[in-house]
Amino acid sequence: MILFIGHIENNKALLSPTESHHMIRVLRMKQGDQVYVTNGAGDMYKGEIESLENKSAVIGNLESIPNLQKRDYKIEMAVAPTKQIDRIEFFLEKAIEIGLDAYYPIITFNSERRKLNHERLNKIGIAAMKQSLKAEQPKIDDLVSFKNFLKENNDTPGQKFIAHCHKDIEQKPIKDVITLKSSYQFLIGPEGDFSKEEVQMAVEHGYTPISLGDQRMRTETAALSCVMLAHWLHQ
Amino acid sequence: MILFIGHIENNKALLSPTESHHMIRVLRMKQGDQVYVTNGAGDMYKGEIESLENKSAVIGNLESIPNLQKRDYKIEMAVAPTKQIDRIEFFLEKAIEIGLDAYYPIITFNSERRKLNHERLNKIGIAAMKQSLKAEQPKIDDLVSFKNFLKENNDTPGQKFIAHCHKDIEQKPIKDVITLKSSYQFLIGPEGDFSKEEVQMAVEHGYTPISLGDQRMRTETAALSCVMLAHWLHQ
Repeated sequence: MILFIGHIENNKALLSPTESHHMIRVLRMKQGDQVYVTNGAGDMYKGEIESLENKSAVIGNLESIPNLQKRDYKIEMAVAPTKQIDRIEFFLEKAIEIGLDAYYPIITFNSERRKLNHERLNKIGIAAMKQSLKAEQPKIDDLVSFKNFLKENNDTPGQKFIAHCHKDIEQKPIKDVITLKSSYQFLIGPEGDFSKEEVQMAVEHGYTPISLGDQRMRTETAALSCVMLAHWLHQ
Repeated sequence: MILFIGHIENNKALLSPTESHHMIRVLRMKQGDQVYVTNGAGDMYKGEIESLENKSAVIGNLESIPNLQKRDYKIEMAVAPTKQIDRIEFFLEKAIEIGLDAYYPIITFNSERRKLNHERLNKIGIAAMKQSLKAEQPKIDDLVSFKNFLKENNDTPGQKFIAHCHKDIEQKPIKDVITLKSSYQFLIGPEGDFSKEEVQMAVEHGYTPISLGDQRMRTETAALSCVMLAHWLHQ
């Protein structure tokens, strides 16, 4: 069964024009078809297509079902988008399937990419969320400078890490410092890594410098490996 | 510094025509440039470009250096290639960066893709190996039927797992059964999963049926998450 995102009210779900279009024009679904629907905030329902107007489909007969993928931890990542955008897109899709809750694209000193199609990334995020039957819509933020990101996240709770490859700045293997906490925030730099100043700045904002081991990894691989670590830690 | 693969003899490394072409025509390197070179079998050297003939470059002054990424375990995966080939290509690149030793593409009952460009996958594998400075060339096999794969791997040592989603066939969470062993072999099915008969067949060949948790994952995500689990287990 296919999952849709809708506005839930009075035991009905009203789909957005985009979701309705997808249901009607792309999937060619019919009145009476059974579907899943979520409000994107953790609630999951089974329902039946009640009406299919041009740009607003309604799902009725909603029956609340348990959110089997509910987790007791959150994963947030700030990753400098890669030069080749398909790399970060693939990362995003895989990371959301596994359980990424928020992606913050950042511009850093060594960033080669300083523009981003936010709408496209958001679409990929929603598609991955729906495909993997998640009841929570991942947050995909606008591109922001590393400096501003740190400022805005000064009070973010949980464990906060910055991965880097500078051998002369102290860092700890991630597995030695990560614990079973309620939330994680990872910072992953661009192809040329964070600058030393950036690592220092993050430390001043409460981030723990970490290493991801002896493997030389691309940006998106490093980011994905952090999501996977948090995932497997909780299995 | 850039890594090349070469045939090592008498303290010199002779590059293949493809590797030589890459060095000379693509990277436009010059005599005297410093490079890394490996035999693809675990030995790593630092050296200096000695001669640059049209199709055969020679690296001299070889100095053996430690293989920092040497692992005391092996990861092999048989994965049914996805319908969209870029998904399996991305998996392969990420998996090799992390430490995949061998990839066996398989044709299963529900496989939609029954053809594969082996040369292209091999190129991706070598590029990923070089990019992540690995001294061991990953094995990328030809497409083979699931049945024949099982026959050929009857005596493969180590822990052997088959991931599937059939709720009525016993399976154990992978984290409950994986141990710190010297080698792993994972079987991951296509978009429509392995058939029940295929799971049964694998069990008869010594594979343990496993589940990867409550997340609904695409083929390549499931495969990647197994590589990541083995990786993080050993960190």
